[in-house]
Amino acid sequence: MITSASNGKIKWVCTLREKAKLRKKEQKFIAEGCKMFLEAPADRLCEVYVSESLLKKDGELETACKERLKKVPYEVVSDDVYKKMSDTVTPQGILCVISIKEAKLEDLLKATDKPLFVLLENLQDPGNLGTILRTAEGAGVTGIVMSRDCVDIYNPKVIRSTMGSVYRVPHFYTEDLCGVIDELKAKGINVYAAALDSSEIYDSYSYMEGSAFVIGNEGNGLRAETIAKAGKCCYLPMEGKVESLNASVAASVLMYEAYRQRRNVK
Amino acid sequence: MITSASNGKIKWVCTLREKAKLRKKEQKFIAEGCKMFLEAPADRLCEVYVSESLLKKDGELETACKERLKKVPYEVVSDDVYKKMSDTVTPQGILCVISIKEAKLEDLLKATDKPLFVLLENLQDPGNLGTILRTAEGAGVTGIVMSRDCVDIYNPKVIRSTMGSVYRVPHFYTEDLCGVIDELKAKGINVYAAALDSSEIYDSYSYMEGSAFVIGNEGNGLRAETIAKAGKCCYLPMEGKVESLNASVAASVLMYEAYRQRRNVK
Repeated sequence: MITSASNGKIKWVCTLREKAKLRKKEQKFIAEGCKMFLEAPADRLCEVYVSESLLKKDGELETACKERLKKVPYEVVSDDVYKKMSDTVTPQGILCVISIKEAKLEDLLKATDKPLFVLLENLQDPGNLGTILRTAEGAGVTGIVMSRDCVDIYNPKVIRSTMGSVYRVPHFYTEDLCGVIDELKAKGINVYAAALDSSEIYDSYSYMEGSAFVIGNEGNGLRAETIAKAGKCCYLPMEGKVESLNASVAASVLMYEAYRQRRNVK
Repeated sequence: MITSASNGKIKWVCTLREKAKLRKKEQKFIAEGCKMFLEAPADRLCEVYVSESLLKKDGELETACKERLKKVPYEVVSDDVYKKMSDTVTPQGILCVISIKEAKLEDLLKATDKPLFVLLENLQDPGNLGTILRTAEGAGVTGIVMSRDCVDIYNPKVIRSTMGSVYRVPHFYTEDLCGVIDELKAKGINVYAAALDSSEIYDSYSYMEGSAFVIGNEGNGLRAETIAKAGKCCYLPMEGKVESLNASVAASVLMYEAYRQRRNVK
């Protein structure tokens, strides 16, 4: 059992939790909690740390964790050390190191003939990114593409709010979002920029063919260049004096509209 | 100018920011930031506190604030004192005390013949409640009804995430959410409980008549009694392994589906 927070492994985990730079270098991130451990893909589970007291509990989730722990190597740490490693107020006592797996656009394009993409430009709020991933899995989205200046998807706050979707929704960062838009358009995919000053209501389009929504920064929306590159625009109509919707709400309404159309024609 | 944080007014404002109990007793809450001041209804604006440095700035928002300050009484406070009053990391330097105005169900029922209500049961996350208010204004919702055990809508985190919608979307708390459901049904309004185990997809219903959605707690959903009382249920279909959507996303997709149907028939 590890009982000292100055243990090299523990210090490495803490740094991995805090520093995007180290996550990028090591191509690994931290996922905390019973569900995140239970849902972690076996081939990407690198390390597991369990608190002393989790092993003594026998709730439903803890029992399921202990069952999986029979099949994977893990380290037990004292409760005090676990608290230092944890990012949450009430830690569940299990934390894993997961290897990063970025999707490739060409693979995603081969996977389905009517893909549905979400492209994010300079999204800054960790909760918004996590919520978008969670909704994207629900709406059957093919993949998420993020501009390099988006918040780090492997930030513990994002990981937590994805509720496991980060393992399952293919995603990658790009230095060149406009280049990705070009590639999508070359494959016949319709790219819709969500822009407040658009003249087309989002539900006036058919999303039955391959489609991609481009969502911008929380405060400033999309860059003019990105809107121009997309070619098509859409907006969510709003009553009252609302100037815009929350970015994750706007993305979710768009994804569920595409999903609604696709379900109802099947 | 107030330069001491132990000034009675300053202490009162800080307590009002922190304590739901005092907000309830005084029937007042705190709204912070330029936009919240600019959008505050004149008849509900009780007190305004401005930091020394805001008065020296001449950005667009600060200039608009100074324009409005010509018409209302306010107190100037030193920057140090302002920091103590503020709930935000980068305070804009203006904060107001607003009187609470709870809507009455009978007034809301008189206001429109095809109302759209959102009922919330035991919603706990301030960000979710704020986001639901903001989307509700956008989707043309008539009013929000909250069970007494929901998070306090006058919590500074909720106020901030409403982006001003808290001033404009009628809302009230009730000790008896099932009683409100009965009243709505008696008026011919269809009440739909959002429940994961429902057999009806949300978009299989027509929301052209008076409608109300009931949304439950983030972790546990709605109580069985509330679902039974509503009579009708609906669920959001989900692909992949997603167990549920974020509560504010689910509410937003439902509100925008009702709004979509209502717009497209007009």
